[in-house]
Amino acid sequence: MIARFRVTLAVMFVLALPLGAAAQDLIVVKKAFELPSYQTVTGATIKNVRIGWEAVGTLNADKSNAILITHFFSGTSHASGKYAPGDPAPGYWDAIIGPGRAIDTDKYYVLSSDTLVNLNAKDPNVITTGPASIDPDTGKPYGMRFPVVSIRDFINVQRALVDSLGIKRLKAVVGASMGALQAYEWAASHPDMVERVIAVIGSPAADPFLIGWLDLWGEPIRLDPKWNNGDYYEKEPPIAGLTAALKLVTLHANHWDWASATQQGWAEPGKDPALSFGNKFKIQATLDAAAAMRAKVADANHFLYLAKASQLASADPSQIKAPTLVLYSPTDLVFYGPLVEEAAKRIANAERATVIGPNGHLNGVLAISQAADRISGFLAR
Amino acid sequence: MIARFRVTLAVMFVLALPLGAAAQDLIVVKKAFELPSYQTVTGATIKNVRIGWEAVGTLNADKSNAILITHFFSGTSHASGKYAPGDPAPGYWDAIIGPGRAIDTDKYYVLSSDTLVNLNAKDPNVITTGPASIDPDTGKPYGMRFPVVSIRDFINVQRALVDSLGIKRLKAVVGASMGALQAYEWAASHPDMVERVIAVIGSPAADPFLIGWLDLWGEPIRLDPKWNNGDYYEKEPPIAGLTAALKLVTLHANHWDWASATQQGWAEPGKDPALSFGNKFKIQATLDAAAAMRAKVADANHFLYLAKASQLASADPSQIKAPTLVLYSPTDLVFYGPLVEEAAKRIANAERATVIGPNGHLNGVLAISQAADRISGFLAR
Repeated sequence: MIARFRVTLAVMFVLALPLGAAAQDLIVVKKAFELPSYQTVTGATIKNVRIGWEAVGTLNADKSNAILITHFFSGTSHASGKYAPGDPAPGYWDAIIGPGRAIDTDKYYVLSSDTLVNLNAKDPNVITTGPASIDPDTGKPYGMRFPVVSIRDFINVQRALVDSLGIKRLKAVVGASMGALQAYEWAASHPDMVERVIAVIGSPAADPFLIGWLDLWGEPIRLDPKWNNGDYYEKEPPIAGLTAALKLVTLHANHWDWASATQQGWAEPGKDPALSFGNKFKIQATLDAAAAMRAKVADANHFLYLAKASQLASADPSQIKAPTLVLYSPTDLVFYGPLVEEAAKRIANAERATVIGPNGHLNGVLAISQAADRISGFLAR
Repeated sequence: MIARFRVTLAVMFVLALPLGAAAQDLIVVKKAFELPSYQTVTGATIKNVRIGWEAVGTLNADKSNAILITHFFSGTSHASGKYAPGDPAPGYWDAIIGPGRAIDTDKYYVLSSDTLVNLNAKDPNVITTGPASIDPDTGKPYGMRFPVVSIRDFINVQRALVDSLGIKRLKAVVGASMGALQAYEWAASHPDMVERVIAVIGSPAADPFLIGWLDLWGEPIRLDPKWNNGDYYEKEPPIAGLTAALKLVTLHANHWDWASATQQGWAEPGKDPALSFGNKFKIQATLDAAAAMRAKVADANHFLYLAKASQLASADPSQIKAPTLVLYSPTDLVFYGPLVEEAAKRIANAERATVIGPNGHLNGVLAISQAADRISGFLAR
């Protein structure tokens, strides 16, 4: 009921906008989906599961035009549009989702949900259930007592959301990075529900090298004494460890080409890094600033659970029957091109294309518009 | 005097060995080189500088057959041979250094020294000066009061060692990774002293992406409360932080190909990683074990100083006049192939070849034997 009122408000905002670029911003509304109880793949029970979701476009009468977008590690359900006209930026894939765009919201009902253990637990626009949530049995945050969840658990909760909307089949599942892990898992585990897959900068399963990196990404959190084995919700959170973890993710997802083009030199003129540890190089300052901003809305335990869920990703490509479009970045340092290609060859009906740019893994988000025709053509076939 | 006695002893050991494979191990002796005072590039003074060095082969009468080997980040002067016949393994480049090998110790006098701030400060075979050393002015370890040093400072101390041996020109400077940073710096700063350069898996300068990674490698140390801003020498050292830092280096220097071939699956049968954070994947256990072993002889502050020195590497390839052989790994994740190639093109007289294998950056150490003919041919010309 509240959600509907907010939709109406949002539409009014759009209508009230002057004509021009800003008028093209689609306004989306965040809604909550609730499950009184969810049993994980390994048998643990989580009560009062809530995840956020949003949708653009209109679900048609026979509910056959839904496309599900699954988000990346540090992402949220906010794939396109804005929550309010004044938002500084639209959702991360706004370049390909919208009226007349590659994933055409004039044709498709495009929905997207926050995962379980979403990283950005403190973002007011994120609704998720994880270690920062209150355990109804104790009245206190779970901390590390929250059960381990996997990509398959993310899919199971999304499946319940899709069911609740009366949608029996998805026109496509589309996701980047950890979103690709989910898209592949959807297709492998629900072959009769998923008509097409678009997997961007990701593999069906986490390879051992990635499993190692995911572990190391989380190490700074565990080393921060404020982490306190995950019990910090009534004290100061481990911001220093979380910030260091986010720096690792930020650098790993990018590339030499970006750094060489934009990050040469010192952080501050006159402060020669040769003179002291406090005098930094530009890239150090860039990473510090980016990670500090991200840490404000992120939760350290959620980071660790999300890394674990990603390590556990293990969709079997030979179980994927849906036609699949694999878009990958040849300079990706998170999901290695040759491994992505190898997995794609094990899918019965997969085609591949590259996304090129200076940002390595992030090309799949920042440079996705170059794949727009490929995506729209694939969906139209 | 002591050194000479030990040489004699070592030779006796060799002579006492039965004939066979082990008899081919060259025995080397670690010696100390001392400078009463060294002034760093930025003007700081370090008293009582001591570094370790070792040599194989015989310096000829006119002292014209010396080759200097410069070591990598986690390495030492121990490039070839064994300290004692029972050593489990010879020096890291034993495959290419020795009698009749690519760097032929029947022809060349091959010397190698520990750098300043060498990582393995607790290794009984390492002699280095850095933050773990006693500051003669206070009688206590320097900690983070040790001055920042750079690759150029490493070269200046090596230069003093070479001078002390009466060597006026080096037949070649040869190094891998941080050793390549040093080899390039030698050639750029001492054009009249360096006849040839062999730079393996490295660039003349640290690029911004590498500078960022070097910073992040050290973050776990700074987050470990036992680090205590570098003052831990009278207490427990920050082993957890140091171990995490060494895990980052270990994984970063390797590659997906190695991990996919050797690190699939769980750490222990019956301990499913899906069930708890304590149940690990094989690669996690591998990294834990490797880093724990390395941490036993490493010093956390030395790690930070070595990372800083590497960040400061900035040899100008256009200043390098010596014929240069650039050996690089196309799958290197530390020194990016295209950047290595780009720098090589800026050297007046450089040729390039690749070192292939499953170990990414480490191909330059583990798979160096494939470049043996190329190296010997380059040196013979």
